[in-house]
Amino acid sequence: MQVRFQPDDVTVPAREGETLLQAGWQAGIYLRQTCGGQGTCAKCRVELLSGELTALQEGAIWEEASGRWALACQTVPASEVEVRVPPRTRLSEDEGAGVLTETDEEEIAAPAPLYLRREVALKAPTLEDATDDLLRLGMALRAEGELTGARLEAVRRLPTVLREHDFQITVDLARRGGGWELAEVSPPGVTEPPFGVAVDIGTTTVAVSLVDLSSGYSLAAAGDYNAQVRLGEDVISRIVFTEESPHGLHDMRRAVLNTVNGLLEKLSARTSIDRNSIRAAAVAGNTTMISLLLGVSPRFLRREPYVPPLTRVPVLAAREVGLRIHPEAQVYCLPSVASYLGADLVSGVLATGLGHSEGVSLLLDVGTNGEMVLGGADWLLGCACSAGPAFEGSGIRSGTRAVPGAIEKVEVAPGGRSVEIGTMGGARPVGICGSGLIEALGSLAEAGVLDRAGKFLPDPDNPRLRRGEDGWEYLLAGAADTAVEEDIVLAQTDLDNLIRAKGAIFAGLRTLLQVADLRPSDIQRVYIAGGFGRFLDLERSIRIGLLPDLPREVFRYVGNSSLRGAKEVLLDRRRWEEAHETADRLTYVELSAGTSFMDEFVSALFLPHTDLELFPSVRLAG
Amino acid sequence: MQVRFQPDDVTVPAREGETLLQAGWQAGIYLRQTCGGQGTCAKCRVELLSGELTALQEGAIWEEASGRWALACQTVPASEVEVRVPPRTRLSEDEGAGVLTETDEEEIAAPAPLYLRREVALKAPTLEDATDDLLRLGMALRAEGELTGARLEAVRRLPTVLREHDFQITVDLARRGGGWELAEVSPPGVTEPPFGVAVDIGTTTVAVSLVDLSSGYSLAAAGDYNAQVRLGEDVISRIVFTEESPHGLHDMRRAVLNTVNGLLEKLSARTSIDRNSIRAAAVAGNTTMISLLLGVSPRFLRREPYVPPLTRVPVLAAREVGLRIHPEAQVYCLPSVASYLGADLVSGVLATGLGHSEGVSLLLDVGTNGEMVLGGADWLLGCACSAGPAFEGSGIRSGTRAVPGAIEKVEVAPGGRSVEIGTMGGARPVGICGSGLIEALGSLAEAGVLDRAGKFLPDPDNPRLRRGEDGWEYLLAGAADTAVEEDIVLAQTDLDNLIRAKGAIFAGLRTLLQVADLRPSDIQRVYIAGGFGRFLDLERSIRIGLLPDLPREVFRYVGNSSLRGAKEVLLDRRRWEEAHETADRLTYVELSAGTSFMDEFVSALFLPHTDLELFPSVRLAG
Repeated sequence: MQVRFQPDDVTVPAREGETLLQAGWQAGIYLRQTCGGQGTCAKCRVELLSGELTALQEGAIWEEASGRWALACQTVPASEVEVRVPPRTRLSEDEGAGVLTETDEEEIAAPAPLYLRREVALKAPTLEDATDDLLRLGMALRAEGELTGARLEAVRRLPTVLREHDFQITVDLARRGGGWELAEVSPPGVTEPPFGVAVDIGTTTVAVSLVDLSSGYSLAAAGDYNAQVRLGEDVISRIVFTEESPHGLHDMRRAVLNTVNGLLEKLSARTSIDRNSIRAAAVAGNTTMISLLLGVSPRFLRREPYVPPLTRVPVLAAREVGLRIHPEAQVYCLPSVASYLGADLVSGVLATGLGHSEGVSLLLDVGTNGEMVLGGADWLLGCACSAGPAFEGSGIRSGTRAVPGAIEKVEVAPGGRSVEIGTMGGARPVGICGSGLIEALGSLAEAGVLDRAGKFLPDPDNPRLRRGEDGWEYLLAGAADTAVEEDIVLAQTDLDNLIRAKGAIFAGLRTLLQVADLRPSDIQRVYIAGGFGRFLDLERSIRIGLLPDLPREVFRYVGNSSLRGAKEVLLDRRRWEEAHETADRLTYVELSAGTSFMDEFVSALFLPHTDLELFPSVRLAG
Repeated sequence: MQVRFQPDDVTVPAREGETLLQAGWQAGIYLRQTCGGQGTCAKCRVELLSGELTALQEGAIWEEASGRWALACQTVPASEVEVRVPPRTRLSEDEGAGVLTETDEEEIAAPAPLYLRREVALKAPTLEDATDDLLRLGMALRAEGELTGARLEAVRRLPTVLREHDFQITVDLARRGGGWELAEVSPPGVTEPPFGVAVDIGTTTVAVSLVDLSSGYSLAAAGDYNAQVRLGEDVISRIVFTEESPHGLHDMRRAVLNTVNGLLEKLSARTSIDRNSIRAAAVAGNTTMISLLLGVSPRFLRREPYVPPLTRVPVLAAREVGLRIHPEAQVYCLPSVASYLGADLVSGVLATGLGHSEGVSLLLDVGTNGEMVLGGADWLLGCACSAGPAFEGSGIRSGTRAVPGAIEKVEVAPGGRSVEIGTMGGARPVGICGSGLIEALGSLAEAGVLDRAGKFLPDPDNPRLRRGEDGWEYLLAGAADTAVEEDIVLAQTDLDNLIRAKGAIFAGLRTLLQVADLRPSDIQRVYIAGGFGRFLDLERSIRIGLLPDLPREVFRYVGNSSLRGAKEVLLDRRRWEEAHETADRLTYVELSAGTSFMDEFVSALFLPHTDLELFPSVRLAG
């Protein structure tokens, strides 16, 4: 059964029972979807130009004025078919280019890396001291720690290199357990340092930083979209994909490996450093991302009682993981705490120094989940609240991820009859992204277009406020002004989703504070992490009740603290141990287990909150 | 250039510069040699039937009444040649079949093996206890010790197998460092135990014992000649081979791997146990044998100051070593002490319990080197004395290894005019082996044919005593009665070699005793180890001054204690630690470093010794 995709004019055979979505993958045509192909997000709709489809669920094929439409994930060709993929539905191959890279060029002083290169002079053996070569080397290296293992290749080279160079040699040591493994033996005078990579695997983007392990310098960094996005936009849809698609887990693993290895190739080309010279990797990411990288099924992560397969990952060889660096390079995956409190947060605690700080600090990473850690040197509490995909631009009618053309700035004039928008990269608008949504919500509330519950106040004189298919909606940009041939609007249902998302995050914070018997004003520092935080308008975020109403100077945007923490681990082995201590002492508060979270959640479904005393600085409009 | 070998009638092309010896290897024709192809042992002589050879050293080609002869290792074809390999020169392919296997069926009680299989029930997770699967497993296994690592394949299976079987599963654990590595995860109810192999790699023979790691039962054992024998008969000739022959180290490694893997295949076939079910191996052997197995050059072992490349071998995977068992099976090589005091002796100390015993014990392994350990629970001293290859039947004109047809019993009638001989397997004599030499020396001394310095007493009336090319020689068997078409004789030079060999061993013992400030009579137990010991006539060995003159009941033949110790390590991880403690506390006494050894050696060049008070029970003839 042939399927022709337009406007690409690409034809592929569809296998028995294969959906249009899956047929598209074969053709290299990736359609949007956030539900893992379950037929619930309705992102994958395509126009049926000719032929017949069989629907796998009711409503998967429908008529509109413009023609016949179908959900690609829920329809199977019943004849030769021709479909058109509208711009909204298409996941652009170019999007990766738009990922911004945070090159954190700050050097880490006095590195004590997980992989060492040392020139060492041994005492030459005598008849009275005929200790074997390997033990002799171990004694010479005592200042570095204990030599507890050795790779066979290195042992094979040791005797000859020692004697060809008068017992002065260069050795490479890789950290393993509490000791060192002899990784390589070379003649003296090696001037090239060993290199390492820190990797942060985000659900949406992946970042890799290449560092010189001897000096601690960051040499280059690169980022890209996680190629898994094609197979599911958020964590849950990806887990569903691994369960539902044949070879789903394998495909997910290959996708992220392709992304990471592509970045490694890019960094290698840019710096002229052979990938084989990269001898260690530290990897951070949320629990699902780490599972998928390792090819470990995360299926039970999303089922009560939300048990991760593993949180402490053994040290693995790059060849086992599939990273294209030196095959024996050790891969240190940072530990995670729970299914939804991952190594990215543990890494962030390291990077911010939160675990050592006096008083109470908060680390907050806002994404599909609001993940946060509260505490300091004495105690650490963490939780994750399901914010839904609103902040990622999903589950929102005109939502989009933070790609060029995403609306990120929204300024609604008082009364709401006019609006100014700004897009990423200044491109023609394609939709509205998470930070734009927060701006819009705050701005609409300030302009008096919404009531305190976030509901549109009917205003027949406002040309931008209209009744759409889902009730009231507010027009941000008309079809003629967009790149997607459709109006970009904010519907009441979108605002409701957004308010639930911000309410969940604030309720999570309140719950942690309650567990610790503290008030918001006890928080002395707030670290906002993640790509999303960079674009967050602080005032608007407080205005809508997403962030607590604290003196503005306590807030600090810390960028990709997950990548930064991984880099610190790579360059300082005490940090590797600290990461494990942090994971051990971080108490995970399971919000679905207690009832106070639900009370807090309901109280937070207002702008900014039911309890206005919590937001003294917020001026209410109207 | 073609070379035709007779009587096989096999023709092979000789590559440029290739010797007849090397051309033979290509044809699968292995010639005797004990010098590593250096042209000094003269074992590889072949008869030149036609064609011309170029000699690489003087005297490598000569004329005899019977025709033209050549040393195969020192001659290169100058034209097409045809050579005959006489029976003496040929290393028979059948010899392996004659290796006796010591199946030590004694079971080791209460095994605490290096590889465990356990069925374990985990507490099912709840929202209040959502600890990850791997940590949860670690907690359930606490009684066994700490779970410090995991193989990726096992982690991948863990979540599913746990949930498909109600959190009751079978796990395999492999010992690594002070903890356990999760090696495999299976459903509950696995009835097959994991299997392991103990391997002893001797210079001459290799023995493998297959054990059930759960019960500790020995299931089967097999032995064979070490295929390295073809490339050099003793340790030194093999080291020379690795240095002189292109790919010599590789060839040596392949040879021993072929032997071990062949035995594994045999054991697998005999027991119907899949080699993949063998999950651990413990390996003992002398320092050179372990080096060659690992592909680590032993070249510096034989050069002053005799430094081994390594004595503590890291735990390796079977795939790295090349053993054809489960590729991830861990290989535990027992530690050695010095270049000539190897893991075989350390293993023997374990097997005999010498390291725990009260009072003073001696473990003695007689081979090319006399290796011995003296001591007990409080202290351990060891040394190795180069006895030369006499006890292996090399360096002796009619010498042979302990193969069928080797003369092992010699009874010389008083006066020496007649002699009775017995051969191994009752076959027609091919030569005289080590134990036969000791019998012969003792018997000749008792019969009054030799003086106290071991020199033949001229006796013109004795038809067996005649002048040969190397001085006096004693006829053991006439050419007509042998399988090698030559007289089997003992020449004065042979006896001199033998006396030097026994003198070196006794001098080593005396030196150790001196270091410990003890007399021979302080020794309470003597363990005689090694294949050689089995055939040793105790009275004759004391008579010639090889063994100390102690009450006969203190001597115990312990068989292949090296294999036995390896098996104990496999089945009891405390023994693995004990092996390292033993290697640590065993003080190696370097005999070439002190002068007292040379004095002792000179005193020991008599039968039995210059100091007759050391041998009160020995009656002197004449």
